[in-house]
Amino acid sequence: MTSFAIIGHLAHTDGAFTLNDLPGSGGRMDILCRCVNASLFLSHDMRRDVDCYLVLCGEPAPPKTVRFSGNAVRSLSPDERSAGALIKKALDIPTGSEFREAAPGVSVRKGGLPQLMTEHVFAVLDERGTDIRTAGIIPDAFLLSDHLNFTDDEELQTKQCPRYSVGPPCIHADHTITIVHNELDRRRCGWK
Amino acid sequence: MTSFAIIGHLAHTDGAFTLNDLPGSGGRMDILCRCVNASLFLSHDMRRDVDCYLVLCGEPAPPKTVRFSGNAVRSLSPDERSAGALIKKALDIPTGSEFREAAPGVSVRKGGLPQLMTEHVFAVLDERGTDIRTAGIIPDAFLLSDHLNFTDDEELQTKQCPRYSVGPPCIHADHTITIVHNELDRRRCGWK
Repeated sequence: MTSFAIIGHLAHTDGAFTLNDLPGSGGRMDILCRCVNASLFLSHDMRRDVDCYLVLCGEPAPPKTVRFSGNAVRSLSPDERSAGALIKKALDIPTGSEFREAAPGVSVRKGGLPQLMTEHVFAVLDERGTDIRTAGIIPDAFLLSDHLNFTDDEELQTKQCPRYSVGPPCIHADHTITIVHNELDRRRCGWK
Repeated sequence: MTSFAIIGHLAHTDGAFTLNDLPGSGGRMDILCRCVNASLFLSHDMRRDVDCYLVLCGEPAPPKTVRFSGNAVRSLSPDERSAGALIKKALDIPTGSEFREAAPGVSVRKGGLPQLMTEHVFAVLDERGTDIRTAGIIPDAFLLSDHLNFTDDEELQTKQCPRYSVGPPCIHADHTITIVHNELDRRRCGWK
């Protein structure tokens, strides 16, 4: 099982955003939608052994965490609107401290990074880390930020985490996920 | 200069599609929009040395080629709708056999793969190719298909092209572009 968690620092935490303007009205929700795509999609197939966590920190009810479970998700297409519609649906239901399913394979709960970090041993993906190609053993849970840097608080919380880079230069979160998958796929299949 | 060309077998060739349904009304235009993103975007920056060609083969006026030039494109954001809006704008202007600019860095012309192949020496990206990591010299122009296989005609036209694979398993075109960029970036910067 591989997990990706992406922090959406401005990502809205209720369903009152429009699918016609995911970047603006959603608080750069488009980035998180592309991360869902990069985490879960293969050509004509889905990565069933992957969970993707979106940690939403924007107004009006932060933080919330939306989980896409590759082994259970059903009505997800690769386009941004499709992931956006499922996130919107998840944010429209009442939330507690436990994950509650809003659609097959899509769940939501209150809480953000601190809670997630009690459940996974994350490696942080950022440009200052060790080259992932040269890493001996690669972990199975990865934490990324959206278009903004980690906050001081998040830096403090993740201070002990190993850090990996996928290579130069600094790229988008979803592109980073794609490259991590490539490295994991290659190792799994015995490619160089 | 690096070039990517993606064949959109069903992609519409006039502007009469809606940005609210890029997959359906646009003939899987969402795939091409994500390929534009993967070709051109860095974190908070643009790859100015990259051109991305979209070869549109759908109704009603195929084929047309839309070119996004990294060195000149201005009003492009990473979300699918943004690329979609520029493609739509390009498809709304009259076309001839020469590229005509529809917006800064976005041009369109009539014609498809045969014409493009007289201008670039393409390598084909597909899963049967040589592992790109082990390739001695990597070319600077890459041809990919969308969610459909190359047609028999396209296979014939590209029979002499070298073929590269980015690794197992079979993945989306935009993910493939991201991995090719990673390999090129690493070589350029002296990473392993």
